[in-house]
Amino acid sequence: MPLRSDWSTKPCSIARGIEAIGDPWVLLILREAFSGVRRFDDFAVRTGANDKVLASRLKHLVEIGLLQRHPLSKGARPRAEYLLTEAGADALPVLHAFSVWAEKHGPNRDLGSLGISCAACGAATQSADTCRACGRTLAPGNVIWSRGGRWPGTFEVVGLPAAG
Amino acid sequence: MPLRSDWSTKPCSIARGIEAIGDPWVLLILREAFSGVRRFDDFAVRTGANDKVLASRLKHLVEIGLLQRHPLSKGARPRAEYLLTEAGADALPVLHAFSVWAEKHGPNRDLGSLGISCAACGAATQSADTCRACGRTLAPGNVIWSRGGRWPGTFEVVGLPAAG
Repeated sequence: MPLRSDWSTKPCSIARGIEAIGDPWVLLILREAFSGVRRFDDFAVRTGANDKVLASRLKHLVEIGLLQRHPLSKGARPRAEYLLTEAGADALPVLHAFSVWAEKHGPNRDLGSLGISCAACGAATQSADTCRACGRTLAPGNVIWSRGGRWPGTFEVVGLPAAG
Repeated sequence: MPLRSDWSTKPCSIARGIEAIGDPWVLLILREAFSGVRRFDDFAVRTGANDKVLASRLKHLVEIGLLQRHPLSKGARPRAEYLLTEAGADALPVLHAFSVWAEKHGPNRDLGSLGISCAACGAATQSADTCRACGRTLAPGNVIWSRGGRWPGTFEVVGLPAAG
């Protein structure tokens, strides 16, 4: 991770959380994982990360337990899928918190927005993790992302793979 | 900012938020600002950032409007205070989201924890921005941080300077 020092032993959970998942590429990869992306090449196209950057961040996310690597094939270029774990799914509020802040205070808000809605009651929310209309905790599987601007679309945020 | 590319014109508010405030040092400086730190030297001691890193991040935070610089004196080494703006105060959920994740999934949880409580009703919360007991939005001025481990203490999270 490209931090200046190792904050994983700091006596502050903010610093330890930043050390683990506060890297910009890590956060962008998680965004795509929540959007349903599972393959290296798809992460590369959707995030714009080069192969070296992407490989290092995927390795990090597997090592700290946010993604699980599932081999699909062997050979000269083995293929694999990267699936969110529970720890990965629980990082969703971090992405939401950045988005909520940027929607209110960030630059270039006309270029595209991200609406966050509760899938259960349908209400839009300005919270990172709680539907203020029905009180439900927002987690993958009960969140709808609505994108406007140059990147339109509405889809359910995915989390853990379906059982069975 | 030490990002690989400029994400401030991305059509995604997650990416734009990360570009603006997703730098580890920026987040640590904001943590200290919420703890009441206002002076360069105090930020340096509390974050461990060297002068060059700290100066560049404070400059960035002033430029994008999260801190306001108030000169206190002129001279060979002018002194100043850095105060949170409304945009800075609204970044609190980003820090909380990292902490909530790290308290649940991060490494070295025995080294120190951060409890987040609603100052109005007193309930502890696992949310980044909403008291799930009384429904209030958590914002500076109505949040209590309780630190355990090697960095104990309880204090009110500060935000905008008091009027008058």
